[in-house]
Amino acid sequence: MELKITDFKVFVAQANFEWAFVRIYSKDLYGTGEAGPAPGLKGMESEFRQLLIGEDAFKINRIVEKLRYAALYSGTTVYHLISAINIALYDIIGKFLNVPIYKLLGGDKTEIPVYVDAHGGKGLEAINALHLPVNLPWIKEAEVETSRLLTTNNPVHGRLSMEKWNEDYSPEAYAKRALKMKNEGYKAMKFDLDVPTPYIDLRRVRNGDLSLKDIDYMAEIVKAVRESVGNEVEIMFDLHWRYNLNTAIRICKSLEPYRLRWLEDPTPAIMAVPNYDELKLLTSQCSVPIETGENLYTVYQFKDLLNTGTRVWAPDIVKAGGITEGRRIAELAAMYDIEYSPHNIASPIGTMAHAHVGSIANTFGFVEFHGHDVPFWNEIVKPKRRIIGDGVIKLTEDPGLGVDLDDEVMRKYWPDYNL
Amino acid sequence: MELKITDFKVFVAQANFEWAFVRIYSKDLYGTGEAGPAPGLKGMESEFRQLLIGEDAFKINRIVEKLRYAALYSGTTVYHLISAINIALYDIIGKFLNVPIYKLLGGDKTEIPVYVDAHGGKGLEAINALHLPVNLPWIKEAEVETSRLLTTNNPVHGRLSMEKWNEDYSPEAYAKRALKMKNEGYKAMKFDLDVPTPYIDLRRVRNGDLSLKDIDYMAEIVKAVRESVGNEVEIMFDLHWRYNLNTAIRICKSLEPYRLRWLEDPTPAIMAVPNYDELKLLTSQCSVPIETGENLYTVYQFKDLLNTGTRVWAPDIVKAGGITEGRRIAELAAMYDIEYSPHNIASPIGTMAHAHVGSIANTFGFVEFHGHDVPFWNEIVKPKRRIIGDGVIKLTEDPGLGVDLDDEVMRKYWPDYNL
Repeated sequence: MELKITDFKVFVAQANFEWAFVRIYSKDLYGTGEAGPAPGLKGMESEFRQLLIGEDAFKINRIVEKLRYAALYSGTTVYHLISAINIALYDIIGKFLNVPIYKLLGGDKTEIPVYVDAHGGKGLEAINALHLPVNLPWIKEAEVETSRLLTTNNPVHGRLSMEKWNEDYSPEAYAKRALKMKNEGYKAMKFDLDVPTPYIDLRRVRNGDLSLKDIDYMAEIVKAVRESVGNEVEIMFDLHWRYNLNTAIRICKSLEPYRLRWLEDPTPAIMAVPNYDELKLLTSQCSVPIETGENLYTVYQFKDLLNTGTRVWAPDIVKAGGITEGRRIAELAAMYDIEYSPHNIASPIGTMAHAHVGSIANTFGFVEFHGHDVPFWNEIVKPKRRIIGDGVIKLTEDPGLGVDLDDEVMRKYWPDYNL
Repeated sequence: MELKITDFKVFVAQANFEWAFVRIYSKDLYGTGEAGPAPGLKGMESEFRQLLIGEDAFKINRIVEKLRYAALYSGTTVYHLISAINIALYDIIGKFLNVPIYKLLGGDKTEIPVYVDAHGGKGLEAINALHLPVNLPWIKEAEVETSRLLTTNNPVHGRLSMEKWNEDYSPEAYAKRALKMKNEGYKAMKFDLDVPTPYIDLRRVRNGDLSLKDIDYMAEIVKAVRESVGNEVEIMFDLHWRYNLNTAIRICKSLEPYRLRWLEDPTPAIMAVPNYDELKLLTSQCSVPIETGENLYTVYQFKDLLNTGTRVWAPDIVKAGGITEGRRIAELAAMYDIEYSPHNIASPIGTMAHAHVGSIANTFGFVEFHGHDVPFWNEIVKPKRRIIGDGVIKLTEDPGLGVDLDDEVMRKYWPDYNL
């Protein structure tokens, strides 16, 4: 039995984030995969096609090793595409054998818990792969915040972003949106806390610094969310690596009363890599569970988190290495009883890949859903169904990922779509 | 005083490796830079152009921080382009002020020692950014080995490469080539030691394993090189992350009598990252200095080498972050009296960038030269001169990098050249 690869294609669609889709063909059969946002992925298509054509899709282990050695000099951006390839390989095998991926993996759980990313009082604007805001037609009608940014040519994350406060960043706005999410059935939700306060001092921003008034305002936001949804809903907050260690510890201590599920990415990072020593110091000082990992690649980088006291791991398998590395990371997390709650800003394709790995992850928490305010999020795939309901993704008997891109709908939104 | 950036262009030229050139324009003035090989760099051009246009080239610190935050989600491949941008910024500033980069940095040394990479009895074939061999017209006439590879669709480095021995990998061939290099004026030279022996067992290759007969043959090669050039020449050998730890320790112990300057990349790596625990174990077991670092990015990753006992650091600044990160890494190395001997497979553009940083690196050893068998290596730049002579690069009073691409010659070899 052999599934010889005959073609490989990449298409990048700008949605709220960039969704980079791939298809791997074996004659008429194909598998679909998704890569997390990164510049240049389409430009890597021909070089990866050369590596893939002629390989047998069943030999995933060989292909993982081959791409590992091919990419050894090229850094980690290429792992976004390698991840999409890995997902597409599992999808094509599943389709060929008429079995869903989670069953190929030996998974048993079929209801995968989801948390919704809510951003603030409204949703986050659309951004490109290098974190610049992009203006899209559907944004106007979506419930998306668009007026906090003072400049449009600085990355929206990090210490150069110049922002001003508005009412979408008030405790009241957060509380209202939290209640809305709860009423939609979500049992867990995450907000951004690295947002402008009424007291923001732009001179402090460059140092990752906050005043005590800023921090107290952030604590008010968290308090308002907790009181809005009560104790039966899990709440999490994201700091996007923005603050220095001393500020992060102050924030963390201020939030202890509100029993967060986790506080995300409190300490600075570069090139995807958090400063492990800083993380360790923070986790030793504060009882709020710290979550990190969305910018780490493969189990080789996650093993280095083991000594940091990080209690929730958030790999994003559309960049960390696909199904294979998702499984490896989930198994390493389980060895240490660390919660595995994957980061996810993908389309339904990448989201379903996360859900299949979730089926075998024995310390699984929640998979993220970051498409709440994207009107066509469910529409771009078939069979047509609402993928997330009552706070879970239900895995079905449909083969492979269980969903596939609906080519007709894709062409409607992206006329140059060509997978 | 301001140098507002008005344009940014990328052109990738396939030579023995891929040379990815960039130019940053401020009206009619421009600076040139080079990125190390990686797929997709041309495809990143427009997104980086958007980030650069309107910035003031003098504010390198701001641009470094801006690109850091922009790239935070995108992994390290993008750092190849960020490195080229950084070099081009220094070049344009140097040209504007009519001063060479090493003087901008406060450098005083003007003779920068070079070692030549010799590969084996002949030179290494040309490879693309994903380590597949490529066939080019000039290869036929160059002194390049082309018959050891049994397959052309496996990466030439790593444990999938299928190779057979030939006479270019005999101790005699190495000794002859070593003498040739010595006669050309080189005071230091490096050979590959992860090469097929007459006893190669392809079933062992997948595990990174070698027989004792293989290892003894490798030691014969090293002995032949040492005896050929005598003790006044430094010799180094490269293992390209190919072998498992136990095999690497066996190799290392066998080479102790030959007083190598260093043994390079003995232990496995993935995504640029060596396994630090393995490195530490190796350096504690063997007196041969271990060199690594060509796949690490920025000073943030080099700091993690500090506890591994690695005694020679080999950053490649055309990917590790350009002049800025080269300076930072050199200064960190000097804090611990660790030798700084940069990896370099670049054209004269990237090579000169290394030389300028070398001028201020207080623990500098040698910069690599990997273009010995490329007939047009000197020809593509102006002013016309032989860049490496008597085993050194001489820094001159010419502004910026001191050399620039010769557009006419570039078009001769790459007709679609368009910087």
